[in-house]
Amino acid sequence: HSHQKRNYKPPRGLVQEKMTENAVFSQNMVLTIDTMNPNVKKVEYAVRGPIVQRAVQIEKELREGVKKPFTEVIKANIGDAHAMGQQPITFFRQVLALCSYPELLKDNMFPEDAKSRARRILQACGGSSLGAYSASQGIDCVRQDVARYIERRDGGVPCDPDNVYLTSGASDGIVTMLKLLVCGEGASKTGVMISIPQYPLYSAALAELGAVQVNYYLNEEKCWSMDLSELERSLAEARKHCNPKVLCIINPGNPTGQVQSRQCIEDVIRFAAKEHLFLMADEVYQDNVYAEGCQFHSFKKVLFELGPQYSNTVELVSFHSTSKCYMGECGFRGGYMEVINMDPEVKAQLIKLVSVRLCPAVPGQALMDMVVNSPQPGEPSYTTFMKERTAILSLLAEKAKLTEEILNTVPGITCNPVQGAMYSFPNISLPQKAIKEAKALGQAPDMFYCMKMLEETGICLVPGSGFGQKDGTYHFRMTILPPTDKLKLLLAKVKEFHQKFTRQYS
Amino acid sequence: HSHQKRNYKPPRGLVQEKMTENAVFSQNMVLTIDTMNPNVKKVEYAVRGPIVQRAVQIEKELREGVKKPFTEVIKANIGDAHAMGQQPITFFRQVLALCSYPELLKDNMFPEDAKSRARRILQACGGSSLGAYSASQGIDCVRQDVARYIERRDGGVPCDPDNVYLTSGASDGIVTMLKLLVCGEGASKTGVMISIPQYPLYSAALAELGAVQVNYYLNEEKCWSMDLSELERSLAEARKHCNPKVLCIINPGNPTGQVQSRQCIEDVIRFAAKEHLFLMADEVYQDNVYAEGCQFHSFKKVLFELGPQYSNTVELVSFHSTSKCYMGECGFRGGYMEVINMDPEVKAQLIKLVSVRLCPAVPGQALMDMVVNSPQPGEPSYTTFMKERTAILSLLAEKAKLTEEILNTVPGITCNPVQGAMYSFPNISLPQKAIKEAKALGQAPDMFYCMKMLEETGICLVPGSGFGQKDGTYHFRMTILPPTDKLKLLLAKVKEFHQKFTRQYS
Repeated sequence: HSHQKRNYKPPRGLVQEKMTENAVFSQNMVLTIDTMNPNVKKVEYAVRGPIVQRAVQIEKELREGVKKPFTEVIKANIGDAHAMGQQPITFFRQVLALCSYPELLKDNMFPEDAKSRARRILQACGGSSLGAYSASQGIDCVRQDVARYIERRDGGVPCDPDNVYLTSGASDGIVTMLKLLVCGEGASKTGVMISIPQYPLYSAALAELGAVQVNYYLNEEKCWSMDLSELERSLAEARKHCNPKVLCIINPGNPTGQVQSRQCIEDVIRFAAKEHLFLMADEVYQDNVYAEGCQFHSFKKVLFELGPQYSNTVELVSFHSTSKCYMGECGFRGGYMEVINMDPEVKAQLIKLVSVRLCPAVPGQALMDMVVNSPQPGEPSYTTFMKERTAILSLLAEKAKLTEEILNTVPGITCNPVQGAMYSFPNISLPQKAIKEAKALGQAPDMFYCMKMLEETGICLVPGSGFGQKDGTYHFRMTILPPTDKLKLLLAKVKEFHQKFTRQYS
Repeated sequence: HSHQKRNYKPPRGLVQEKMTENAVFSQNMVLTIDTMNPNVKKVEYAVRGPIVQRAVQIEKELREGVKKPFTEVIKANIGDAHAMGQQPITFFRQVLALCSYPELLKDNMFPEDAKSRARRILQACGGSSLGAYSASQGIDCVRQDVARYIERRDGGVPCDPDNVYLTSGASDGIVTMLKLLVCGEGASKTGVMISIPQYPLYSAALAELGAVQVNYYLNEEKCWSMDLSELERSLAEARKHCNPKVLCIINPGNPTGQVQSRQCIEDVIRFAAKEHLFLMADEVYQDNVYAEGCQFHSFKKVLFELGPQYSNTVELVSFHSTSKCYMGECGFRGGYMEVINMDPEVKAQLIKLVSVRLCPAVPGQALMDMVVNSPQPGEPSYTTFMKERTAILSLLAEKAKLTEEILNTVPGITCNPVQGAMYSFPNISLPQKAIKEAKALGQAPDMFYCMKMLEETGICLVPGSGFGQKDGTYHFRMTILPPTDKLKLLLAKVKEFHQKFTRQYS
């Protein structure tokens, strides 16, 4: 294996810890960093970026016996509940097992409602198998169950299953919608308004599609609320150089954890109607609302309550997922989107587009069905289901409170209440000397801070710069998902680290 | 619900059978057929196109009691084995059930090897749950098992698990690779060479990415083989107007069912090396080889056997899937790709790109693991596994033969041997009068033919025009997947229809 000869260039980045056997470093290669799609190069995704890659390396070093000032890496970088020890909902997994291996339907160990649910799903599958392709839009009966769920959630506002598309997680739906919406070049290129801080899927998808990212800033002083005046400023600015057509909202907020008021949602809808914007509402945390006085309001419900001049005209798509809420089933990549007021010709195009990828994974579709049609009072699995669901959501509410409280005891850290979702996004004061040192290294100051924290404490957070923030402010995102004991340890370590860091660079 | 007022335009296409309640037909909409991404409009995907949509409608009409000259629709349009009644492999589904609901590990009903496999997969998952995100490249131990499988398959040619990326079916991998490769504008726009006939995922992905589709024609007279001279012609032509960088091969062939000879693969590799082309080898039918004297040769194995001047320089990616072969598990969307001689900097970009979508569905990854690491002699599940696998592959071989034989008895239909994969792609002679009538309707003649066959017989095939074919030739693709009885019925009906159609238009 002596191919690493010609034109050797040391690789950039952190990933290439190991040179692969077949690597050839040749100017004659077809696909190189210089010849590849430049839009892909512009993509960034902090949630699995350099910090996380370094965390994986450190874990490996620990296993290999390398001495560190800590014994384990605590990952609070990603909303991955099961990885943090949360147990799956029993009913969901029973039905999945039954669907996977229908021989189990003969067994007496499963409750009747799990069996009848599995039978219902299997009947809707080709050849009664999870292994058949489904319709590209998703299994009919699952879309019907989604529609009924939305109607119940929204106090009876009607939902047509034809408007429901099952997806591979919410990310898939968001990217698909952006693909439909983005076009044009130069000043007529599509602009997409996204909140800053944002979930970096948005910026990544926009970079890949070559669309214009139009930032509007959330108001940190007012608990990360959306200000109408800021939306107006952002839009007016964008209209000077692109064609802003889309407004994206994440509610409850990621990474910022706010829950929008009904008034705010009304304002946003009126704004979209007036300014002729397509609304994309990322509502994957709809069950994750913890703070007193806060409540989840779906964009669709508010839209319909504003009356027909809005509900007949404003174009809206809402996204949901099996990955968050109380179930946290990220690995199954289940999700749906509902489109409102979509041109039927565009719907035909959307169906064509999703058919190229054949269908979302069928186990994820089955899981989505259980989420929107969970056990009901009187059914054998109801009591256990409710106990499990309530326990998970109460614990999350506790940890949201705990996180906010402890972080706010640290001088130099200011943390808004975690009203919902799964994250806190505290503001951190960094000494000038640290900022200077980071800049000398070509790093964002909060990346420098988080990387140092990882090396010294084993705690893996994501720097605010990965989500976007007002110039001159610094943050990190941490999930509230670690088990309570570990979360307390993590918060104590963050506190200690921040104080030490501040002393060191003052 | 009276919103369907303003500027009503009747919808195009076949999809909008039903007007949705919220539909608004307004020139003021943000997203319309005229304002949407024009690349998406260019996408076509015949395998789930108008014929299939009409078939679904007809099924509904039959259920509603509408009288037809047939009682059921027989779908031979898509390689969906389970939908056609093929049973899943017991071992695979046992392990999936155990992974979904690990309580079952306590049960005595499962063989020990299924249990130990489930434990191994769960240990590799965050929180020992299929519900945790995996690494974006795929679960480590699954990638290791894939690497060992490839080494066994290729007679010991080494495979580095770092070169293996798990995907959501092969489609996902193909689109991801094309995303990396496609760039440029005008005469420097990336050209991608694809076989004609092709599997329409390729044309669809190229349309979406705005790349240049470069056609090379397979030689129908020589059993759909690849001719070097045709590759040269196609490339020379393409170089006049774009930058051809990629050569895609499907072996065994879809829709054409040929299995390439070792010599042909050598020729293609030498051609790619000489002409500086990146090779994409779609090898999802690698177990589906039926004809005597035919054998599957992986591009990677042949590449390495050609010696270091090729194996150290030619850039190759090979795709595999859980959807085809003997398992036919389409619904799980499992797959992998192996990259050879990829620039490490590009690999880092690839990892970043896949991380945006977080990970392929974990149940599909688990299934891929079982496919590449199936029960071994001496293990409790081995006998049943081999019995099931052999039965499925023998039956497919029988049906391949049967299809070819019966089709070739029809005057006006000429069918190459179905050497491999799951399809026959016979040449059909259409009378001039039929061609004229089709053209008057704005339809491809073989679309006209297939649509008529569907309406009169209930048989759902895909016209050759959906895959591409030489001008003036006509074909259809049919799968060999229906159960033998139904396949015989289908072939008899095709025969009868073709004769009637020919009489009618002569």
